[in-house]
Amino acid sequence: MTKKEEPGTHRTLYDLVAADGRCFSPTCWRTRLALAHKGLEWASQPTRFTEIPQVAGGGHKTVPVLDDAGTVVGDSWNIAEYLESHYPDRPSLFGCETGKRLAWFVQQWTQTQLTGPLLRMIVAYIHAGLAPADQAYFRESREKRLGGRRLEDIQAERDALLPAFRTLLAPLRASLETQAFLGGAAPTYADYIVFGTFQWARMTSPFRLLADDDPVSAWVGRCLDLHDGLARRAPAYY
Amino acid sequence: MTKKEEPGTHRTLYDLVAADGRCFSPTCWRTRLALAHKGLEWASQPTRFTEIPQVAGGGHKTVPVLDDAGTVVGDSWNIAEYLESHYPDRPSLFGCETGKRLAWFVQQWTQTQLTGPLLRMIVAYIHAGLAPADQAYFRESREKRLGGRRLEDIQAERDALLPAFRTLLAPLRASLETQAFLGGAAPTYADYIVFGTFQWARMTSPFRLLADDDPVSAWVGRCLDLHDGLARRAPAYY
Repeated sequence: MTKKEEPGTHRTLYDLVAADGRCFSPTCWRTRLALAHKGLEWASQPTRFTEIPQVAGGGHKTVPVLDDAGTVVGDSWNIAEYLESHYPDRPSLFGCETGKRLAWFVQQWTQTQLTGPLLRMIVAYIHAGLAPADQAYFRESREKRLGGRRLEDIQAERDALLPAFRTLLAPLRASLETQAFLGGAAPTYADYIVFGTFQWARMTSPFRLLADDDPVSAWVGRCLDLHDGLARRAPAYY
Repeated sequence: MTKKEEPGTHRTLYDLVAADGRCFSPTCWRTRLALAHKGLEWASQPTRFTEIPQVAGGGHKTVPVLDDAGTVVGDSWNIAEYLESHYPDRPSLFGCETGKRLAWFVQQWTQTQLTGPLLRMIVAYIHAGLAPADQAYFRESREKRLGGRRLEDIQAERDALLPAFRTLLAPLRASLETQAFLGGAAPTYADYIVFGTFQWARMTSPFRLLADDDPVSAWVGRCLDLHDGLARRAPAYY
């Protein structure tokens, strides 16, 4: 077990929320798991899309934003780097500089190969779960990003999109055939990067992405169990 | 500069060769660069596909095979692990355990995303360069692997296959926008894994894979310059 902090620490994570309060953002989950990995406590500040411009004094376009006793850091990658350098005596997120740079590659792989295809399969579910004030923003920005079609029409093709998505998981699947986590026997930040994407899906949509016998599915289960079941305790569809 | 060894070391790398003697195998290039990274000398033993069963006492289905003063290791990944553990005082290939496990992910990404699509674009060129005794083996095994069509017919579609291949490079390209090598400011084994694939292409085929202004192209150039231009000195089409 990672040593817990002394009480009294002021640490706030600005965390994206749906209408019912669930924190579903894939990048916020990267940060939540990174904080838990370091054994750090935090208070979650639920934040809607349309509230982001007012977060932590302004200037941020996305969450997560971490306010660590007055030090404000935005962007999940920057937060991970901050936590690693500011809390070096706690369990490492990256292992070493090479481990950090290759975690960066894993992040680029996730963002360029997984995020877009997955978004298309769940985008109307995400929209349906948002607070009314966020829905208009989300629809306009995502329909523009996804080629101008209605979110519902894009998502309606999800069954046809699923096989290609599963094929894109090939390098993850192959890695997990010989080890429990991307980081080896124990999880590292690279695991949290990829897992956040699956947590996003299961918290916003009942659409099942993985076959039960997929090694990726077993790895998702292991990630759900980490840090006293932090991710498993969150509300989800499956 | 990495310290060179004392003369007199007996170290043999069984290395795949074409008819004209060029060593073009992507996995052999991983090993060559790993040896150079460690500052180790070696003698290359040119090996044809059909000679592999006789290599180093037999039992190997692929090269590279390394004979390090009597210790025989096959498979490029196993060789890299062997070099890292056997020569720990020389420059590290992986940085740390996390770096090694994420290099393994990079290898899975290379094998599942890049190798197959690239093979289709150059497979008849590879065949044309082989010694006659190897050509029959190569044609039969690769035509079977690629769905039963003639190598020449598969390769004839290379212009149509190229855009998808370039899209698959997105995570590599995005990583290299902020750093010189996948491993960061300096190369690590993960770079050699991916670079071997491009070296394979440029040594067997005149078909250009990358636009000149692609950041991946600049990275290939940096890899060609490593270790006194080891890869650049090899015969290639461009």
